[in-house]
Amino acid sequence: MSATEPVADNGVNVEHLLGARTALTDAPEAAEFTWRATTEWVRGTRTQTTIEDYSGLGEKHSHKAEFSYTGDHPEVFASEDNGPTPVEFVLVGLSTCLTAGLAAVAQNRNIQLNSVKASIEGDMNILGILGADPEVRNGFNDIRVHFDIDADASPAEIEALVAQSQKRSAVFDVVTNPSNVSVSVN
Amino acid sequence: MSATEPVADNGVNVEHLLGARTALTDAPEAAEFTWRATTEWVRGTRTQTTIEDYSGLGEKHSHKAEFSYTGDHPEVFASEDNGPTPVEFVLVGLSTCLTAGLAAVAQNRNIQLNSVKASIEGDMNILGILGADPEVRNGFNDIRVHFDIDADASPAEIEALVAQSQKRSAVFDVVTNPSNVSVSVN
Repeated sequence: MSATEPVADNGVNVEHLLGARTALTDAPEAAEFTWRATTEWVRGTRTQTTIEDYSGLGEKHSHKAEFSYTGDHPEVFASEDNGPTPVEFVLVGLSTCLTAGLAAVAQNRNIQLNSVKASIEGDMNILGILGADPEVRNGFNDIRVHFDIDADASPAEIEALVAQSQKRSAVFDVVTNPSNVSVSVN
Repeated sequence: MSATEPVADNGVNVEHLLGARTALTDAPEAAEFTWRATTEWVRGTRTQTTIEDYSGLGEKHSHKAEFSYTGDHPEVFASEDNGPTPVEFVLVGLSTCLTAGLAAVAQNRNIQLNSVKASIEGDMNILGILGADPEVRNGFNDIRVHFDIDADASPAEIEALVAQSQKRSAVFDVVTNPSNVSVSVN
């Protein structure tokens, strides 16, 4: 980089991430993370979920604070709408993953971001979850994410940021590919 | 039901849901829902996501309140840990979906729930998202949900509640099966 080239500052410590990539390649067991949450049923479709700790780099870590989320169903389902539906939490996960990833990729490419907004929509036919039509799936039929990005870069460079963010996104992978889920009781 | 049989009250309006199933089977276009969220990049890996409205039953509905969520990456990734990671929001969605669904199924089967707790864990090897090993996926390798349930029912009936909740869960479907996601920019 020449002395006159501007240095982007998106607030992402890319040097640390590149260092971690090297270190974890040499100690792959430290790269095994486990993320956790606990959900308590309140009443009706209302739930309270807390996130406190996770494991990685060979040990358990506490988040800086406990994060707590109310979930519910809306009034059109005869519920109280005390919080978003479960599927809306998945949309939060997907759009935050693509947006945070985009900031990391931009930093790595020395592209200054000025503003990023992601609008996400997921279509779902509720005949699936109601058990009314066995041909209709329970989950999303289609999800659309639209980015509005202001960055010191060409349109082609901005498109490439979005593409690379998808390529490295954990939640994009979870939503577009199958994952194994095992459920046990008592 | 005989006059002496106890009537479960889990706070779920099952009559409404069964009525909706009949009504929507006769007017299937009303069953098409769209859920939405908007994510703004703050700085670094920190994002702020708001959920305000959704469409269904042929019109747009506002949630009772605007719901707003901070997402971030943890300090071990050289971030500030102002909120959970995107993948933890997915865990919130999955465990709230299975738990709320369980309450609805229990109500429909006239089973009184006393308490329900779901503990969820997702394993992820971060060599995937770091781009360090092309053989490692970005998302979860394995997700485990464990329910502790106190209900006025036999162990077999409780196991059947958990199984039926999975069968009708929108987020269980999203996580265990692929969904189409399209991403556009500007």
